[in-house]
Amino acid sequence: MNVKSDIKIIKGSITSPNGFKATGKHTGLKKYKKDLAIIFSEVPANTAAVFTTNIVKAACVLWNQKIVKMQPGVQAIVVNSGNANACTGDEGITNNETMAEITAKSLGLKKEQVLVASTGVIGVSLPMDTIKTGIEMLCPELGNSDEDGKNAAESIMTTDTFSKEIAVEFEIQGKTVKIAGMAKGSGMIHPNMATMLAFLTTDINITTELLDKALKETVTDSYNMISVDGDTSTNDMVTILANGKAKNQLISEENEDYKVFREALNTVNTHLAQQIIKDGEGATKFLEAQIHGATTKDEARKLAKSIISSSLVKAAFFGEDANWGRIIAAMGYSGAYFDQTKVGISFSNNTGSIVVMQNGMPIKFDEDEALKILKEKDIKIIVNLQDGGAEATAWGCDLSYEYVKINGEYRT
Amino acid sequence: MNVKSDIKIIKGSITSPNGFKATGKHTGLKKYKKDLAIIFSEVPANTAAVFTTNIVKAACVLWNQKIVKMQPGVQAIVVNSGNANACTGDEGITNNETMAEITAKSLGLKKEQVLVASTGVIGVSLPMDTIKTGIEMLCPELGNSDEDGKNAAESIMTTDTFSKEIAVEFEIQGKTVKIAGMAKGSGMIHPNMATMLAFLTTDINITTELLDKALKETVTDSYNMISVDGDTSTNDMVTILANGKAKNQLISEENEDYKVFREALNTVNTHLAQQIIKDGEGATKFLEAQIHGATTKDEARKLAKSIISSSLVKAAFFGEDANWGRIIAAMGYSGAYFDQTKVGISFSNNTGSIVVMQNGMPIKFDEDEALKILKEKDIKIIVNLQDGGAEATAWGCDLSYEYVKINGEYRT
Repeated sequence: MNVKSDIKIIKGSITSPNGFKATGKHTGLKKYKKDLAIIFSEVPANTAAVFTTNIVKAACVLWNQKIVKMQPGVQAIVVNSGNANACTGDEGITNNETMAEITAKSLGLKKEQVLVASTGVIGVSLPMDTIKTGIEMLCPELGNSDEDGKNAAESIMTTDTFSKEIAVEFEIQGKTVKIAGMAKGSGMIHPNMATMLAFLTTDINITTELLDKALKETVTDSYNMISVDGDTSTNDMVTILANGKAKNQLISEENEDYKVFREALNTVNTHLAQQIIKDGEGATKFLEAQIHGATTKDEARKLAKSIISSSLVKAAFFGEDANWGRIIAAMGYSGAYFDQTKVGISFSNNTGSIVVMQNGMPIKFDEDEALKILKEKDIKIIVNLQDGGAEATAWGCDLSYEYVKINGEYRT
Repeated sequence: MNVKSDIKIIKGSITSPNGFKATGKHTGLKKYKKDLAIIFSEVPANTAAVFTTNIVKAACVLWNQKIVKMQPGVQAIVVNSGNANACTGDEGITNNETMAEITAKSLGLKKEQVLVASTGVIGVSLPMDTIKTGIEMLCPELGNSDEDGKNAAESIMTTDTFSKEIAVEFEIQGKTVKIAGMAKGSGMIHPNMATMLAFLTTDINITTELLDKALKETVTDSYNMISVDGDTSTNDMVTILANGKAKNQLISEENEDYKVFREALNTVNTHLAQQIIKDGEGATKFLEAQIHGATTKDEARKLAKSIISSSLVKAAFFGEDANWGRIIAAMGYSGAYFDQTKVGISFSNNTGSIVVMQNGMPIKFDEDEALKILKEKDIKIIVNLQDGGAEATAWGCDLSYEYVKINGEYRT
C-alpha cells in the first residue's frame, strides 16, 4: 500500500493542527534575535519524546523525561535559546522547574503539564528575571496563525541560518488530521541526535503507546540518520504532543490508520532532518548516501552513516573530488560486513549519473561528467552491495572552511 | 621500578640496531619525491605486526598477515609510496606478490621473507615496470648509515611534511640493545590506526610470542591513542623485525628484561605516534588529553580519545577558545560512564595552568590567562574524574582551514 499518496504537505506551521497555538519573540536572552517560544495545546495532550544519549544531560532533559513518564496531560512547551542551562548544577535544576512553574501559572496549568527546552551556551546560569518577564509577556500573545508558528520556530534558532518548519495533512476515517513540526540545528548533528531540538504537534487521537512507537521508529530513520560533525549534545530532544482534536476514533492498535499516521510523521521528521543538514554549519553540499542490497537494515544504516560521517569524504565533496576510495574506506571501518568484490558505487543528481566502482573495482569515468555532478549542491552517493534486500539512507553535508570558522569562534 | 631511566634516545635511524640496512629514493612512482624504500636484516628476524581493522584491506596487508603467521625468517621490507595498491582486485594481489618476488630475487631471499607495504592513491594499478626497475636499482644501494635510514624514512611519506624517525638504546644482561623506528601519517589517523605505516627494527633476541605481545600492548597506548580525523584506512600497519644481533640471552618469559624492552618499545611508538599528530594535516595545535581518576583503563582510554576526536573540540582549539563545554559533551557521548558532578578540567602547558571546571561546575577563570595557554602550540587537557585510579592519555590536533584544503584537493 502506497500510503504516501494520501499525505499532503500544506502551507503552515506548528499551529496548523487543530487546537494548537504558539508564539515567540526577543526577550533579552540574546542581544537582538528572538530567543523565547511557547507552544500551547488547548486541551491536555498525549506526549512522546526521544532524548539525547549523552550521559551529561541538561536540566530540561531530566525534567521532560520525568514528565513524559507521568503523562499528566501536557499542554505547553516553553523553549529558550541563547543559554542551554547545562552543567549548571542544582541551580540549573531549580531554574528549569521555575521556568515550568512560571509558564504554568501564566496559562492556568500545573507545572507538570509544561515541558521545557533550552539551547545555547553551556555552563552559564539562566538569567531568571529575564526569563520570568519574557514568559509572562509571551503567554497572552499565543495565537494560531502561521506567523505565530513562524515566530516560535525562529525563536529556537542558535547558529541556524533559517527556521525549519513543515505541516502535513491526511485523512483517516473521513477526518482531516494534521501533523506539524519545527526544529533547530545546526552544528553538532550526529547519530542519536545532537544539538537539535524538534517539536511536533498533531491533532490525531492516538494512544500514548502508539504515539511513542511511531515517534521512535521515525526518529531512527530521520534525525538519527543525519550527521554534521559527529558530536552529540547534552540538550537534544524530539517531542510530540497529540491532542485528539481531529476527533478520529482513538487509534489503539497498529492498523492501517496507524500506518498512515506513522508515514505522515516520517514525512515530517525526514523533512526536518534534511532541513537541519541543509543548514549544517558552513555546508556547501547536501549529501545523500543510499545503501542498497544489504543483508540487514542495521548494516545498511551503519554503512550509510559511516559514509556521511567521514571527515575525509566530506572534505572531498567540498573539493568536488570524485574520491570513491574514501567512500569504500569509510564503509570498511563502519562495523558492518560486506563483500568488497561486489560493491558498486555511483554519484547522481539532476544533472546525471556516473558509475565510479563496479564489483569492487574502480571504473574509468569521464572526469568532466563527474565534475558536472559534483558541482551541484545536491549529490546522491548510491551504493549497491548485491548482498540482500535491505536498504537505508543517511544525509550529511560537506566539511568546509566555514565550518571550522563558525566552530572556532562560537563562544568568543 | 623506573625502567625509563635506562632508556636513552640516540641519534640514529632505522639502521641503528645491529645488522640492519636500508635505503630509499625517487624511482618514478611520484613526480619528484622519494617513493621507494627497502629495509633489510642481514639475518632472518622474528616478526610481529598489527594491521588495519578496516574490512577493506589492501593487497599488502593480506600478504603480510600471511607471512607473519608463517614466521619464515623475514629479512626485508619493501615499501612504496604514491600508490596504495588497494581496491585493485586480483591484479593488485598479483602485483603485490611480484613486488616481494623481485625484492627477494635481488637480495637472494625467498619471496616469503619479504614484507610489502604500499601507501598513496587507492584504486590505481601499480606501474610494475617502474616498481621492478626501482627495486633492482635500490637493492645494491642498501647501507647502514643514518643517511640511508633517513632516505628510507623520507621515501614512505605521502602528505607528511617531515619524516618521522627515532632510535633508542638500553642495556640488558650487560649487552647494548637498540630499537629504531620510522613512520608516516598524516591524515586519516584514528583509533585502530589509519593511513599510517610504522616500521620498527631491533637487534634484541626475543621469542616471536613476546615480540608480538610487546608490540600489541604498546600499539594500544600509542598509535591507537591518536586521532587526526577519525578515518581508518585500508593499508595501515605497524611491523617490527627482531634479528637477535644484540646477542642477549633469548627472552622467552615476561621477566625484567622483557619489561625493559617493552618500555623502550613504548618510548619508540609513543614518539612516532606523537610525531604523526604533530604533522596532522593542517594542524596548528598539538593536543594531549589526560584522563585521571577513572574507574578502569578502558573507560579512561574511551574518554581521552573521545575528547581529541571531537570536531567541535578541535575547532575550538583552532580558534583558541577555552570551550570546556564541548569537552564535557564529548566525554558524555564517549560510551564511558563517569559522575559528572565530580569532574575537574584544566588546561596547561609551559606558560601556566588554568582550572575551568571543578566538581562538574564551571569555574570563573581569567580569559587572558586562558588565552596565554591556548595561544601556544602544545596544550594539555587534564581531566580528573575522582572515581578511581585508572588513567590514559590520547593525542590529537586541532581542525583547521588547512585540513579542509588538503583533503578537498588531495586527489585532483
